[in-house]
Amino acid sequence: MAAAPAPLDTLCINSIRMLAVDAVNKSNSGHPGLPMGCAPMGYALWDKFLRHNPKNPQWFNRDRFVLSAGHGCMLLYALLHLTGYDSVSIEDIKQFRQWGSRTPGHPETFETDGVEVTAGPLGAGISNAVGLAIAEAHLAAKFNKPDTKIVDHYTYVIMGDGCNQEGVSSEACSLAGHLKLGKLIALYDDNQITIDGRTDVSFTEDVLKRYESYGWHVQHVAEGNSDVNAIANAIATAKAISDKPSIIKISTTIGFGSPNKSDTAGVHGAPLGEEEATLTREKLGWNYQPFEIPQEAYDHYRQAIQRGSTLESEWNKLLDNYRSKYPNEAAEFERMLRGELPNGWDKNLPTYSTNDKGLATRKHSQICLGELGPNLPELIGGSADLTHSNYTDIKGETGSFQPDSPEKRYLHFGVREHAMAAILNGIAYHKSGLIPYGGTFLVFADYMRGSMRLSALSELGVIYVLTHDSIGVGEDGPTHQPIETIPSLRAMPNMLVFRPGDGNETSGAYKLAIQNRSRPSALCLSRQGMANQANSSIEKVALGGYVLEDCDGIPELILIGTGSELDLCVQASKTLTAEGHKVRVVSMPCVELFEEQSNAYKEQVLPKSTRKRLVVEAAEAFGWHKYIGLDGDSVTMTRFGASAPGGTCMEKFGFTVENVVSKAKSLIN
Amino acid sequence: MAAAPAPLDTLCINSIRMLAVDAVNKSNSGHPGLPMGCAPMGYALWDKFLRHNPKNPQWFNRDRFVLSAGHGCMLLYALLHLTGYDSVSIEDIKQFRQWGSRTPGHPETFETDGVEVTAGPLGAGISNAVGLAIAEAHLAAKFNKPDTKIVDHYTYVIMGDGCNQEGVSSEACSLAGHLKLGKLIALYDDNQITIDGRTDVSFTEDVLKRYESYGWHVQHVAEGNSDVNAIANAIATAKAISDKPSIIKISTTIGFGSPNKSDTAGVHGAPLGEEEATLTREKLGWNYQPFEIPQEAYDHYRQAIQRGSTLESEWNKLLDNYRSKYPNEAAEFERMLRGELPNGWDKNLPTYSTNDKGLATRKHSQICLGELGPNLPELIGGSADLTHSNYTDIKGETGSFQPDSPEKRYLHFGVREHAMAAILNGIAYHKSGLIPYGGTFLVFADYMRGSMRLSALSELGVIYVLTHDSIGVGEDGPTHQPIETIPSLRAMPNMLVFRPGDGNETSGAYKLAIQNRSRPSALCLSRQGMANQANSSIEKVALGGYVLEDCDGIPELILIGTGSELDLCVQASKTLTAEGHKVRVVSMPCVELFEEQSNAYKEQVLPKSTRKRLVVEAAEAFGWHKYIGLDGDSVTMTRFGASAPGGTCMEKFGFTVENVVSKAKSLIN
Repeated sequence: MAAAPAPLDTLCINSIRMLAVDAVNKSNSGHPGLPMGCAPMGYALWDKFLRHNPKNPQWFNRDRFVLSAGHGCMLLYALLHLTGYDSVSIEDIKQFRQWGSRTPGHPETFETDGVEVTAGPLGAGISNAVGLAIAEAHLAAKFNKPDTKIVDHYTYVIMGDGCNQEGVSSEACSLAGHLKLGKLIALYDDNQITIDGRTDVSFTEDVLKRYESYGWHVQHVAEGNSDVNAIANAIATAKAISDKPSIIKISTTIGFGSPNKSDTAGVHGAPLGEEEATLTREKLGWNYQPFEIPQEAYDHYRQAIQRGSTLESEWNKLLDNYRSKYPNEAAEFERMLRGELPNGWDKNLPTYSTNDKGLATRKHSQICLGELGPNLPELIGGSADLTHSNYTDIKGETGSFQPDSPEKRYLHFGVREHAMAAILNGIAYHKSGLIPYGGTFLVFADYMRGSMRLSALSELGVIYVLTHDSIGVGEDGPTHQPIETIPSLRAMPNMLVFRPGDGNETSGAYKLAIQNRSRPSALCLSRQGMANQANSSIEKVALGGYVLEDCDGIPELILIGTGSELDLCVQASKTLTAEGHKVRVVSMPCVELFEEQSNAYKEQVLPKSTRKRLVVEAAEAFGWHKYIGLDGDSVTMTRFGASAPGGTCMEKFGFTVENVVSKAKSLIN
Repeated sequence: MAAAPAPLDTLCINSIRMLAVDAVNKSNSGHPGLPMGCAPMGYALWDKFLRHNPKNPQWFNRDRFVLSAGHGCMLLYALLHLTGYDSVSIEDIKQFRQWGSRTPGHPETFETDGVEVTAGPLGAGISNAVGLAIAEAHLAAKFNKPDTKIVDHYTYVIMGDGCNQEGVSSEACSLAGHLKLGKLIALYDDNQITIDGRTDVSFTEDVLKRYESYGWHVQHVAEGNSDVNAIANAIATAKAISDKPSIIKISTTIGFGSPNKSDTAGVHGAPLGEEEATLTREKLGWNYQPFEIPQEAYDHYRQAIQRGSTLESEWNKLLDNYRSKYPNEAAEFERMLRGELPNGWDKNLPTYSTNDKGLATRKHSQICLGELGPNLPELIGGSADLTHSNYTDIKGETGSFQPDSPEKRYLHFGVREHAMAAILNGIAYHKSGLIPYGGTFLVFADYMRGSMRLSALSELGVIYVLTHDSIGVGEDGPTHQPIETIPSLRAMPNMLVFRPGDGNETSGAYKLAIQNRSRPSALCLSRQGMANQANSSIEKVALGGYVLEDCDGIPELILIGTGSELDLCVQASKTLTAEGHKVRVVSMPCVELFEEQSNAYKEQVLPKSTRKRLVVEAAEAFGWHKYIGLDGDSVTMTRFGASAPGGTCMEKFGFTVENVVSKAKSLIN
């Protein structure tokens, strides 16, 4: 029999429960079940362990708390409110899920201070947490000194059954076990209920045994509805395990306190209603009005403010000490925390002339990473087991981030694209200046699109290095040849999609990707070589699209090209020009940046009067009609590719100078 | 010490190895490592267990073999060739990875008879295999009689480290364990090498322990390079376990036989080269020329032809017997195998008039499923734990496919979208007439896009029921509100994307989705209600787009709408018409089908002369310029959504009659 919690503990726990009940009832929308069930673990963690400063949510050395089961966000909002964050007042809680409120239906970093990761898509949060723990371990190894640990915090997670069913969490947690991330501690809310009913309709695996197989330390708290001490003891034990991540399965009752709805799927995502709320008040012995919190609870919770202030002060002293003993390291550390790029970070980005051998843009990308690496120590990343295809290594560096070498910045993600993207997001969420990048084949962006979307939504400057960007992949065939992937990424808000057409444009794409710290970039890079252009430059990429080759006067025809097809446009324009046509070639390495230019500039590049426009891109035409309209045409893909040498694919699918010239003539004539 | 295999066994095994070496060398591209390492297990399985008929690859009751590690396709092509499939001659093998060959770089069902699933994207094949095993279990429960088992086969898989790292396989295998799919047997090629090097750079989990946690039966064969007996014994043991899926970890050496490249990442995906091939011949004692197979090996392998013929004859007799004893069941079974829909399957699809209450299209979808269910027994599907939100249940039916009720056709996939899509593909790959469908929120199409792409590429008539299709989702906020998802799906070749605008169009979308057995459909359905239209119909949906409301003479303006925004167009056109404008409303429930209409029809609906066109859709405009060109406009989304009641979101983002009218006027004036 578990010990009953002390009355003050009970009051504090029920404060969370009833804020959730009341907020969901008022908005008539939301998920009361999880906060009611997880209130004890939330309380135990936040009250007894979490090192944070409610009055400075951005304090660097805070523990990170991730609510991976994001639908239960009222748990988080309640904790933020109760512990004294200014971002969540009681009025904010009353505005739960309303337009413009700071308490949206799922936690979003860009809406609410104190929210560490945007959650809701299940499995993402725990996987972000792996990234947060990697960031902490890396920075600790990089900056800490034997006498001064300026980077030293835990990453805590609350996750549910849904998070554990999603494959992305399996990928990320397998890697976390491999990496022995000892400061990652997950509390697993085992409430046996999902939306379809009891978990036993689909989910009967032994979750802890699975985590053990990953190399995690595992514990089980059998009575999670009231046994705060047991939860606290388990967390303390987990903290003491330094060479393994920890998971604590905590058995709870969803909607605990609701006499008629607890332990049912009905309380997962629907309001209790007034009547059941009243019955819940009775059941929990809660003698307060909606949104009323007893002062004792506030008084207790808000000791966090003083604790947090003290913690931050102590850390500031530590940093002062560090600054005086290790001025160079401190300067670097503080520069990174300010999010400033180092002077001259881009000075070695290479430029090319037409005399330089035409390389694959994945090769140009490798050169960029090699040149950026020494000048940009915050660059950290790797590949989902395609290092020697993506060329994501930083030339000159050896070794990788491993349990015994967390100071290294190369990450072997394994064949785990989705976890890679989620971990890159986690590294970015750490807000410590690290610039995360990760590589895979472009076509496998589909495997990690869920997390790429979260990069875009949460304004994270993650860099996706996506090689093998068309049928130019060749022999690997249609499963490996992206056709629709580029358009599908261009459709995503706040994602910069670069498809550089030569070496200069690749350098330009890197420059912009590094500079854009609040939106992700997808670099679409070729497997095969392509010529360097005479009039490309790093700077012009910032315009998104620009005139690469031009005629005198008003062009009859505009050829628009990207990537490996840019040179086809240039060659075709030569033929057409020789035949007396007035042809312009526009390079369009980044549609999104072109869209952001002034109307005057856009009109200058693509004058409305020239409606004969031909796009050449070895991908679906989808999206290009914005520029070619009803009167233009395209040399693009209309079906999946085929297995054959890349050059053959290009030829068979019409990516030849002859075909471009022929299509151009059909338009002009 | 493992027993050395008998000389004939060795000859047969090395036949596979050397075909792989020679084919990859000749094409100068491909993956020799896996076939060389897996040759013994491939041989053991195909020679001693696999029930198949090389002369009739489509024989229904064959065991299914899935090469989940698709890059190792030379293993499969070698086995198909050696056992006598007409689809893979020695000439075909010489054309490995060449344009138009039947031996593409990854196995593709649509290119090569005998290939059961298209593989290459890792983790997909093993997850398809779960679907194949579900199909078998369901049909067996449905059709078998105590005296006659007409459905009775195993599903075998060869998978690698990559497959085991991918989250989709974790999801699918957890579900397979829950469902106790005893006839699913996976051989795990444990070769300790991935592209980045030794697996210990990222993958050190205890894989078998993980599978045990899922409820699988696990075994380990320590010497997989030669111990055919041990492999065969393990397979025999696995077959005897009827209440659990089985995994057999078989430790092998990648590139076995190559003296300098075996056991390195270098042999994974690159040719050995002539010199190393010669050394490999010496090492293996292989005294044959490239592409030369000793007759003894052919003679032995091709006993499969006689065995297969006998197996099929016996089964045909069984079917004759079944036909005579159970004529109704037999007729139904054979109808399904022919891929014929039952008479009157669509007779109860509901139609609506403007008098009928406007419902959410997810609700119309539920009604369709309820009406189709009784008349379409091959309909099988479920939801990724959103049954009561997606409304994917078949009304009137109770219970679900569970270990003790495989005759049921409702599938609880758990919170596992990617596995769901892969399993639906697997059910379709079974080619037994089953029509698989699965539901989740539209925004989570991103989680399963890798497998949706394979539905499209492999021409599988999977039906995706994707509800909550816009910012109309409301309070759940931007993580749950698709903005770019619809365009991103429209960009995919061979995918029908339906966004019905009322009840009739929903019925029409279902009719077409059911009829299209060789391309998948994505039904994008609203959370919120919408009015029924006067001039919509089931039949018109087949046109993809059609004139819903019209004016006399040539329209000044064409409003194009889909889904919940269709009625906005209708209401706006009323206002505009009342003000004297000539306005047409085009409903466009399926862009892909509209594209397939004749130019004359398209011109009739969207005459080139009317260039003032306004699209109204609560999604990114991306892709719509094909119809609105440079002179039209759109009321669409340009950013991620927000958490607020759905009606508020619609209003705030401009989806109001007033705004549509206003934008329309700007265009006209």
